[in-house]
Amino acid sequence: MSDAGSLQALVQALRRLPGVGVKSAQRMAYHLLQHDRPGAQVLAQALQQACEHLGHCERCHTFSEQALCAICRDGERDATRLCVVETPADQAAMERTGAFSGLYFVLMGRLSPLDGVGPADIGMQQLLQRAADGVVQEVILATSFTAEGEATAHALSQALRRAGVRVTRLARGVPVGSELEYVDLGTIAHALADRR
Amino acid sequence: MSDAGSLQALVQALRRLPGVGVKSAQRMAYHLLQHDRPGAQVLAQALQQACEHLGHCERCHTFSEQALCAICRDGERDATRLCVVETPADQAAMERTGAFSGLYFVLMGRLSPLDGVGPADIGMQQLLQRAADGVVQEVILATSFTAEGEATAHALSQALRRAGVRVTRLARGVPVGSELEYVDLGTIAHALADRR
Ligand SMILES: [Zn+2]
Ligand SMILES: [Zn+2]
Repeated sequence: MSDAGSLQALVQALRRLPGVGVKSAQRMAYHLLQHDRPGAQVLAQALQQACEHLGHCERCHTFSEQALCAICRDGERDATRLCVVETPADQAAMERTGAFSGLYFVLMGRLSPLDGVGPADIGMQQLLQRAADGVVQEVILATSFTAEGEATAHALSQALRRAGVRVTRLARGVPVGSELEYVDLGTIAHALADRR
Repeated sequence: MSDAGSLQALVQALRRLPGVGVKSAQRMAYHLLQHDRPGAQVLAQALQQACEHLGHCERCHTFSEQALCAICRDGERDATRLCVVETPADQAAMERTGAFSGLYFVLMGRLSPLDGVGPADIGMQQLLQRAADGVVQEVILATSFTAEGEATAHALSQALRRAGVRVTRLARGVPVGSELEYVDLGTIAHALADRR
């Protein structure tokens, strides 16, 4: 395959994508080269454009093409509430609910000692500074309800409370529209404990 | 997210990869932008290089940077045997066995009426011409032992036999190193029927 070096290079490069092993990378490379060369060109350009133009918002850390993202620039938002989420996707989900009009801090990850992700990687210091700016009155922790998300919420909550900030957490409970019979037991137990 | 248009564009472009939905595409985009920007650059370049340099070998249809691939150019190979495989990966697997010294025809796919892949898409006509060149004495069908691979082998076999070409198929049977107890029943049944 010495005359297919650029094919090998493409397969290797695709393996840098998370969750893509050698079999998937081969399948992706064959598909693009055999059936969707325009798609390959579009992807190449999108990667270059994103690397060139996307930085991080100075205030909330989400991806942004400008120094401040659209939400942080929006003077209509309620600056006294700060919602902490793990990723831009979580932030987008929260925005889609239409139930939150405050500002955000995007951790761009979550604490994961096994993967070497510590407080500095999720910007804990910047969050503490941000929360102590005299405007923020409540920090709402909206990290995932997974083991790592809960550990992250716990660590942030302790640090923020030490700094005298009011901290709340999204309620755990039975998803709207669920029949109790099909909800996992841990969720039911938490919904019972957090009943109001 | 109007100020993150290049992020949206990247997520959309990643969805053109086979098997990648919106969640995976987001995860890939975040990973590259947050943790592996050099990887994003490498991938962009590999895509462009591959599109620019990779065509198809004129004789066997596999990906090649030259008019004839390295195997087809190799005068030491036995041109009387022609092995038909579905993909360059299958060809590479066959080469690694070291058990075949003939030439190849790479279908770059397999018949799949439901996906709109017909005889023209796998180069059946070119294979028939190739097999009737007066040099080839045996065509070995090495398509997958899946429903679609078997259907492809069946269709090729009929067309080749009509053209007077000798056709063989890889033997089905119990994988080397397997304990019979753990082999699926269909495989055992075929191994029994194909016993020699
Ligand atoms: Zn922002
Ligand atoms: Zn060739």
